[in-house]
Amino acid sequence: MAAALSHEKLSETHRPTLDQALDAIRTRAYWSPHPEHPKAYGEGGVPGSLGPAEGKAAFDAVLHTRLDLGQPGTDGWTGGEVSPYGPELGVEYPHIDPDVLLPAMSGAMGSWRAAGPETRALVCLEILARINARTHELAHAVMHTSGQAFVMAFQAGGPHAQDCGLEAVAYAYAEQTRTPEAADWSKPQGKRDPLRLHKSYTAAGRGVSLLIGCNTFPTWNGYSGLFASLATGNPVLVKPHPRAVLPLALTVRLAREVLTEAGFDPNLVALAAERPGEGIAKSLALRPEVKIIDYTGSSSFGDWLEANAGQAQVYTEKAGVNTVVIDSTDDYRGMLSNLAFSLSLYSGQMCTTPQNLLIPRDGITTDAGAKTYDEVVTDIAEAVGGLLGDDARANGLLGALVNPDVKARLEAAAALGEVALASRAVANPDFPDAVVRTPVVVKLDGAKPDDGAAFLSECFGPVSFAVAVDSTADALTLLRRTIREKGAMTVGAYTTSPDVERAVEEVCFDESAQLSLNLTGGVYVNQTAAFSDFHGSGGNPAANAALCDGAFVSNRFRVVEVRRQA
Amino acid sequence: MAAALSHEKLSETHRPTLDQALDAIRTRAYWSPHPEHPKAYGEGGVPGSLGPAEGKAAFDAVLHTRLDLGQPGTDGWTGGEVSPYGPELGVEYPHIDPDVLLPAMSGAMGSWRAAGPETRALVCLEILARINARTHELAHAVMHTSGQAFVMAFQAGGPHAQDCGLEAVAYAYAEQTRTPEAADWSKPQGKRDPLRLHKSYTAAGRGVSLLIGCNTFPTWNGYSGLFASLATGNPVLVKPHPRAVLPLALTVRLAREVLTEAGFDPNLVALAAERPGEGIAKSLALRPEVKIIDYTGSSSFGDWLEANAGQAQVYTEKAGVNTVVIDSTDDYRGMLSNLAFSLSLYSGQMCTTPQNLLIPRDGITTDAGAKTYDEVVTDIAEAVGGLLGDDARANGLLGALVNPDVKARLEAAAALGEVALASRAVANPDFPDAVVRTPVVVKLDGAKPDDGAAFLSECFGPVSFAVAVDSTADALTLLRRTIREKGAMTVGAYTTSPDVERAVEEVCFDESAQLSLNLTGGVYVNQTAAFSDFHGSGGNPAANAALCDGAFVSNRFRVVEVRRQA
Repeated sequence: MAAALSHEKLSETHRPTLDQALDAIRTRAYWSPHPEHPKAYGEGGVPGSLGPAEGKAAFDAVLHTRLDLGQPGTDGWTGGEVSPYGPELGVEYPHIDPDVLLPAMSGAMGSWRAAGPETRALVCLEILARINARTHELAHAVMHTSGQAFVMAFQAGGPHAQDCGLEAVAYAYAEQTRTPEAADWSKPQGKRDPLRLHKSYTAAGRGVSLLIGCNTFPTWNGYSGLFASLATGNPVLVKPHPRAVLPLALTVRLAREVLTEAGFDPNLVALAAERPGEGIAKSLALRPEVKIIDYTGSSSFGDWLEANAGQAQVYTEKAGVNTVVIDSTDDYRGMLSNLAFSLSLYSGQMCTTPQNLLIPRDGITTDAGAKTYDEVVTDIAEAVGGLLGDDARANGLLGALVNPDVKARLEAAAALGEVALASRAVANPDFPDAVVRTPVVVKLDGAKPDDGAAFLSECFGPVSFAVAVDSTADALTLLRRTIREKGAMTVGAYTTSPDVERAVEEVCFDESAQLSLNLTGGVYVNQTAAFSDFHGSGGNPAANAALCDGAFVSNRFRVVEVRRQA
Repeated sequence: MAAALSHEKLSETHRPTLDQALDAIRTRAYWSPHPEHPKAYGEGGVPGSLGPAEGKAAFDAVLHTRLDLGQPGTDGWTGGEVSPYGPELGVEYPHIDPDVLLPAMSGAMGSWRAAGPETRALVCLEILARINARTHELAHAVMHTSGQAFVMAFQAGGPHAQDCGLEAVAYAYAEQTRTPEAADWSKPQGKRDPLRLHKSYTAAGRGVSLLIGCNTFPTWNGYSGLFASLATGNPVLVKPHPRAVLPLALTVRLAREVLTEAGFDPNLVALAAERPGEGIAKSLALRPEVKIIDYTGSSSFGDWLEANAGQAQVYTEKAGVNTVVIDSTDDYRGMLSNLAFSLSLYSGQMCTTPQNLLIPRDGITTDAGAKTYDEVVTDIAEAVGGLLGDDARANGLLGALVNPDVKARLEAAAALGEVALASRAVANPDFPDAVVRTPVVVKLDGAKPDDGAAFLSECFGPVSFAVAVDSTADALTLLRRTIREKGAMTVGAYTTSPDVERAVEEVCFDESAQLSLNLTGGVYVNQTAAFSDFHGSGGNPAANAALCDGAFVSNRFRVVEVRRQA
């Protein structure tokens, strides 16, 4: 292979990182090769990376241009993203003819398969390194499609997303190399000669993998599936959310660059941007070439994919209703400030943000004395209000509402109960058109789950319900029912009672939900760290897969054995 | 735990075996702890095992009795198995009320989950050891339900099936222990204190696992799913084929015995026998408690399960059309005798038996000179005829036809083309009512795949088609189409050409089919060895899962994480 990026060069650069990643998914201790501080990039930082000004300039340079990826089957151009902060992005992307592009992608599989798991992993790591070097550029792209504040777009959309991609590569490599490349098999036959066979085992990808991206976390929610599929030998067609194309288009461009330099067909990664209202996800999902689908978005389309794309392995992250059970605490201040941050971060527009706070009507015990339901709710409201009292800080935490639907839900929520904390509009001096809102906290006392209560549906956005319950036992019954019927990406609980702790754990074991207990410091229930935490469980209706585990990668390829008489 | 079988005792007895199994699935060298010679059991053999006479006596003693398993929700008794060799078995089994039994099974999960992956694996190994000790009894049960000849029933239904169960336990244990039980996570924060969390990770089963057994290999095709699910924390409800209940009922009895002795709820394994024509698989498969289904059988019901049992993870092995490509050979005699055995074993009633032999019309090159299509077919027919010329040997290889449908297909096949080898009835002196038949080989020259040709559908039983093709290249085109459209559990090929070898490998990689090349000795394309071979690939229409690999176990449980501030 006369490629610019030889296996040897890739191995020298990336094999140590791969080994560290493999170690991290086994120990689950903290680890990341991707610095999360913006100042770590640029001169003196990550080698070859763009610094703050360079990243911003790169982002500005791509605006109002046509992003030609050189893909076969390009039958036109489309675009039209408008930043939640106001500006039109004006970038045009290739529109695809799937009858041309999909066969080209399938045709790229043979040499990618033949390259083997290690080379595939190393190429993926090179792609991630190129992405990492352009984190500042991507941060602006994520900010101006998702509405995240810059620092969050930088961290969650940059290093944390890159961690997710690397974690998936590590799982994919580990899974494919559980079976050796070859084995000699010799079965004793008593006094006769043993039976002997030479066997080879080849990890073979399944076919085109379709990534259906989301609006709020285009890279964070996309990279796990993208890299899991690519590393296991599958071409990946990236279909971004129409309002969040740019971060994934830039990703695809870097992937195609690296694949070419490494001597592979760039069509192993391609972009499928769509025209307004075209809805191409549905038709692409049913194409016979598509054997794997990764999806993040609404439950209705996720359920449709699971039920209808029978030719494909379908991995979905859908909607859920996240609950925090508040029973008691020995750090009342810590609990309040931790919850306030969780409810505020990115205006609650995270699939992991708590929605329902279950509080006993008779109150809770705390290190600051007994607190009634009303007091707890008031104190939470005050904590949120205090956290977001300063507009600059509020802008930095909240970001902008991603679309008018979120704003509409926020405005409607106030009518659902007694408003403990009203939402307020925050002015953004840099982007006057941005819609920035603080969370609303609504008290629900007496709402019964069987009345079709609003709190039992996902109300995506900065809306929380402080639900009064008869007792902690009732809270656990409601928690179990919520997870089982509606799903949950996260569960939180505060308690000083070992019995309650055990009981809430049992509910989460039974119903397969990830639990955070007594968080009062700088880690929040809505955050998951790659290599250590699992994002979702795959065992309740919120998601049919966890990011990332063996099940997420093991069915993206099949092992084909060839036996020969030895 | 005051159980008779403590963890320590189980560990002392079985941990070394588990470690060897874990090693075997990594190296894929030959290994088995279960002797396959009938004389290895009884006095002086496997400790505590039943010898030939004891096993036969145990089998005879269970005939015409009621097998009371002590299951809750037993609302009557059912039975009615008739041996393919003639005799009625007369065993009665509990009939279940799922509204009582399923909640009892679900209720057994908590303590089984709390026991952890190692104890679950060790308990499974103890169950397998008890089964192994009663291999002689189970061999008769398999013989008189499947129609397999005794030695095959003994080996495939005994040690080989036990190997499959153990292999699944090893995969399940490995998968659950990839993630540690706990981790301390500490994220640096520059000059501030690091963020610290203590995390625990619990493998939690998903719910009741339903095993839908088959008629021909009740234990071999059943044990992988049964033990994979049990070892990953799930109760298993065993729904045998109504004509092959006894081997699985005896298995369930032993499992319940061991679970009780180890201090667990015996309802972790239960039997669901059905009344004639009741078809309970369909209603059980849709029960909300059922979260996992393992199925072996027809494509129509397998496809139905995949499409309809959306609440469950569904693992299917269905029908396929297995092909052997004959291009050339340097051991013509070896090829003929190997093929003759493959076509004859258990009257071709294996999902792995070759059906279509693709032979170039202009003939092939061999070490015995060039052979025309007609000569090759005649020589295969003669090899089969020679192998089965002696009635005693024929009975020992063929066994009995499992049901009248197989006989009807066999009889109809002769009309599909020119008969190269006619089937003949073989008398069985021990069982005069047994229907024993040698295979038919039918020549098809000029049959086009698009004519709805019979050879492109599975013709389960002792029927093979010698299909004349224009060239080896045509054979590979037909092979690709057959795998893609109809599925294949096995592919065989004979060639002396490296180019052809490479081409057939590429087809199998592309279409995900397991390939055996140039088998001319004592290993046959229809045999797969646990720990080394994969049974099916899970990547073509014949099966959506392989036995056994990571994908077969990784979604039978979910990892639930609990994070606590450290």
